[in-house]
Amino acid sequence: MIDNLIKEIKRKKSFLCIGLDPDLDLIPKDFLSYEDPIFEFNKFIIDSTHDLTVAYKPNIAFYEAYGLKGWLSLQKTIDYINQNYPEIFTIADAKRGDIGNTSKKYAKCFFDEMGFDSITVNPYMGKDSVEPFLEYKDKVTILLALTSNIGKLDFQFLEPGEKPLYQWVIEKSKMWKNSQNLMYVIGATSPDLIKDIRQNLPDSFLLIPGIGAQGGDFDLVCNSAINDNIGILINSSRSIIYSDDIRNSANELKDKMSKYF
Amino acid sequence: MIDNLIKEIKRKKSFLCIGLDPDLDLIPKDFLSYEDPIFEFNKFIIDSTHDLTVAYKPNIAFYEAYGLKGWLSLQKTIDYINQNYPEIFTIADAKRGDIGNTSKKYAKCFFDEMGFDSITVNPYMGKDSVEPFLEYKDKVTILLALTSNIGKLDFQFLEPGEKPLYQWVIEKSKMWKNSQNLMYVIGATSPDLIKDIRQNLPDSFLLIPGIGAQGGDFDLVCNSAINDNIGILINSSRSIIYSDDIRNSANELKDKMSKYF
Repeated sequence: MIDNLIKEIKRKKSFLCIGLDPDLDLIPKDFLSYEDPIFEFNKFIIDSTHDLTVAYKPNIAFYEAYGLKGWLSLQKTIDYINQNYPEIFTIADAKRGDIGNTSKKYAKCFFDEMGFDSITVNPYMGKDSVEPFLEYKDKVTILLALTSNIGKLDFQFLEPGEKPLYQWVIEKSKMWKNSQNLMYVIGATSPDLIKDIRQNLPDSFLLIPGIGAQGGDFDLVCNSAINDNIGILINSSRSIIYSDDIRNSANELKDKMSKYF
Repeated sequence: MIDNLIKEIKRKKSFLCIGLDPDLDLIPKDFLSYEDPIFEFNKFIIDSTHDLTVAYKPNIAFYEAYGLKGWLSLQKTIDYINQNYPEIFTIADAKRGDIGNTSKKYAKCFFDEMGFDSITVNPYMGKDSVEPFLEYKDKVTILLALTSNIGKLDFQFLEPGEKPLYQWVIEKSKMWKNSQNLMYVIGATSPDLIKDIRQNLPDSFLLIPGIGAQGGDFDLVCNSAINDNIGILINSSRSIIYSDDIRNSANELKDKMSKYF
């Protein structure tokens, strides 16, 4: 799975991930006349950008907010990607995690039932809440380490034993079973810390949100985080999908990536 | 909302919460012939126990595992409770949490769309990931503090500044806006710590999982955690819903509660 992603990154000269976070209050009015405006909006984004991006990341909250209808739109979206652009890496941005027998159910949902390639997982409940996801050897589990929001300061930077919590998350998770299937969420809003994190995780992929609407600096992040396989996915959601010209906005970000190949 | 719960607890002399965690591999075979076995199984549990329990807690993973069908069963279950037993407190055991604009969507899903009274929320992403839930003043937000699983040892017991992480979660959360709408998840598998937690949170409700299948000691927990309003919900899932006599199992646990009134 990760090998395929690396191949696609090199082929497309892109490490762009587009967040599919549809909001009926924000999508262009033209789409509202369709029976399933969310799916049609996503389909439009996907068809406009599939050759520029290597990953799509629907944030599940934006679908759950519309109840059953939203889940139907989500399933249609992931099916559409898998059928038409199977080379593209898909991320269920779900931030799940529960006791072992329950995490197993979440893994079944997103991997087996829905057909995602990967899922984001919250570390708070520890090893047995994450390992059921890691058991899927052809899937990827993306652990929250250092998030991009202001609330990261509340707990992730507390320092038990003179090392911040997010580093404990990284270090402990490396010892978990099947940890080779891990990636990490590292927010672009802490660029000064990414260099250290990369030294600690030389080979892991980092999913980096927080460029764009949240204000992270693109080149600062790339210079600190890129490894021999590129090894990062830069996510952009709102600043692409709600721009006046979606393809153009995606292309502008992809163009900025070309110098790193 | 919490006032109603206290009233029900006193009226029923029960602080039982029943976890509705249906698994098609485990439910009695008779239910499998129905069009919606999960809903019918839940309906049977609810009709058998509504006078013994004050809360129902569906763990969302067990529904998501069945995709769209599962979500439909979940919605039917919560509608059934709200229509027939509106006095019963409902908990979406969802363990959600994301950046602010995304947590808002989760709150919309579980509070507005689905009609739950409360939701469990993961603290890892901090204040702005939790406050969108707290804004709902007639709803309750149940924050994971000290969970019942073995993975609690990985991060929740790390001690930044000589105080374990779960205590930081409790203390910081008390300062968040609308924190009067908070309850806390405190696992029954750490009974020796519950007394301290109660001193720190004299008035808050504690949702206590881990009695039963996970092995927590009932009386030890009650003696440490009960306050003037009772102030706890003891959850039991598997050891009630998969017992040979559901009503009897619920009643046995409720009977053990009577001495605390």
